[in-house]
Amino acid sequence: MDSTPLSLEAIHDLAYTVLAANGCDAANADAVARTVTAAERDGAASHGLFRLPGYVASLRNGRVRGNADPTVSTITPAFLRVDGDGGFAPLALERGLPALADAARALGVAALAINDCYHFAALWPETEALADEALAGIACVNYAAVVAPHGGSEPLFGTNPLAFAWPRPGADPVVADMATAAMAQGEIQLAARAGRPVPEGTGVDADGAPTTDPAAILEGTQLPFGGHKGSAIALLVELLAAAATGDAFSYEVAGDSADGGPTRGGEFILALDPAVLAGADAGARSEAFFRRFEAIPGARLPGARRHSLRREAGPRAVDSALLARIRSLAA
Amino acid sequence: MDSTPLSLEAIHDLAYTVLAANGCDAANADAVARTVTAAERDGAASHGLFRLPGYVASLRNGRVRGNADPTVSTITPAFLRVDGDGGFAPLALERGLPALADAARALGVAALAINDCYHFAALWPETEALADEALAGIACVNYAAVVAPHGGSEPLFGTNPLAFAWPRPGADPVVADMATAAMAQGEIQLAARAGRPVPEGTGVDADGAPTTDPAAILEGTQLPFGGHKGSAIALLVELLAAAATGDAFSYEVAGDSADGGPTRGGEFILALDPAVLAGADAGARSEAFFRRFEAIPGARLPGARRHSLRREAGPRAVDSALLARIRSLAA
Repeated sequence: MDSTPLSLEAIHDLAYTVLAANGCDAANADAVARTVTAAERDGAASHGLFRLPGYVASLRNGRVRGNADPTVSTITPAFLRVDGDGGFAPLALERGLPALADAARALGVAALAINDCYHFAALWPETEALADEALAGIACVNYAAVVAPHGGSEPLFGTNPLAFAWPRPGADPVVADMATAAMAQGEIQLAARAGRPVPEGTGVDADGAPTTDPAAILEGTQLPFGGHKGSAIALLVELLAAAATGDAFSYEVAGDSADGGPTRGGEFILALDPAVLAGADAGARSEAFFRRFEAIPGARLPGARRHSLRREAGPRAVDSALLARIRSLAA
Repeated sequence: MDSTPLSLEAIHDLAYTVLAANGCDAANADAVARTVTAAERDGAASHGLFRLPGYVASLRNGRVRGNADPTVSTITPAFLRVDGDGGFAPLALERGLPALADAARALGVAALAINDCYHFAALWPETEALADEALAGIACVNYAAVVAPHGGSEPLFGTNPLAFAWPRPGADPVVADMATAAMAQGEIQLAARAGRPVPEGTGVDADGAPTTDPAAILEGTQLPFGGHKGSAIALLVELLAAAATGDAFSYEVAGDSADGGPTRGGEFILALDPAVLAGADAGARSEAFFRRFEAIPGARLPGARRHSLRREAGPRAVDSALLARIRSLAA
């Protein structure tokens, strides 16, 4: 594809300008723009500028509030809630995570539910933010129903990503972020756009027949990764993100994203303080484990590639056609 | 195989007698015997009487204390610890779970670490015990290193099972219990005993070559389910069970189970109270979701088959050769 080099500053400015031109106030435009920029910085195109037309569509038709003012409530000392006020997730996260970190440091374990919010990004930013505070974090969201439980071919789950981060003293944390669908919807969309087939097992077409055509799967049903075990993990994500937060199940917001934007839904985040749970040598002990992992030929700690891409200086290559489309959205 | 019908009462009595004859005090013998009996009741032979020779071996050589007296400590209002006193897990769980349930009801979320303990059973009993109290539970343990991270062929993870249970008002809870290894070690052992091949992807032999011979895999290395995503889940289990509890990583107890018994290690259990987290209609909302799941042709809620087998009246069929071996252990 034809690409255009853009500095991280230019990516942030472009995202901010487009969001502000479409109804985001400064706090929301900045929070979303930083999330988009972080994805481009880390080489995660499917969660970067690629998402901006969807953000804008849901602002323009009034589904998502660009001037949302998320508020944090302390339900119990160990459980916090952010009312997202019908806006995008980044500002809700920015406001809720410091309170979650404080609660986890005080109690060893604490949870945060985000409600009435629209999550359209990767999950590693929130778990990595906790790891940067020397905490372990686990996060999950559900999404419009596009994935069938193992054995079925009717969609019930969202792509239901799950992320976790574990801190490493003096080093990048270990950060895993995975869709429990066999393939993330963003990646299927990118494959459809590029005309590339996807692996078998990714999904079935509208008639329930297996296919490797990404466009047919977007019209049909995705499948969970890893057979019945992956399906159980997708179920756990659905239960944490919807049942534990009291927010929408994926099937309740199935048509929500017809405009290409995010669906309404909850997010569940758990934070643990290893120093409280496992004592003062927790960091040294997990570090010995991580070094042992890194020494195994062929194995790679989750997040290592993303952190390596992050450290690259200079501009990022942005799809030129996407860039032209985004620039037109600022008008 | 030749089998002998045994009532659940007879199974419990046999297990109790054998454990008591080999050094368990009454409290430990009863707790382990109830765990073994529950597995046979639910059709889970690989965690039933099949485990008894391993329990006995680790008692006879003094690795595990049959008169362990587990104690519960409140580290913070949201985090409890059971010192397992070097005994088997069932009594430690029996003592820790009520305190965990109380903490979850008070705070919405709470965690329990079990330390200095030997877990040799399925994980569904502890999560289902929480669901019976209208709580959601997530539990995981690690185990002697027998599973390589995705991409590698050196063992680092245990079979690292993960279980969760979600309550259903007036019905059996949803209970998933899965090894994050492609296949549970107990199932590979049963396949080896029966001379049955196992699916490709289950593991590699001692030279790192793929094989479907269960005996060769027991000499080699198991693999995680679901490729790099399943490997990330296995890593999360390892971190929760070892790093978050401050207990042994799988690689630290790799030779522990040479006698066929359990390895030393920690267990991490998280409990959530949906009523605190999601409000009074939490049960009705999750129930609507579960009914929708059950209506999908071909899909099955985790645990449904086990609960169905549980309801069968009458004796259970026990492998006659195993039964003879176990009876000889009471001498």
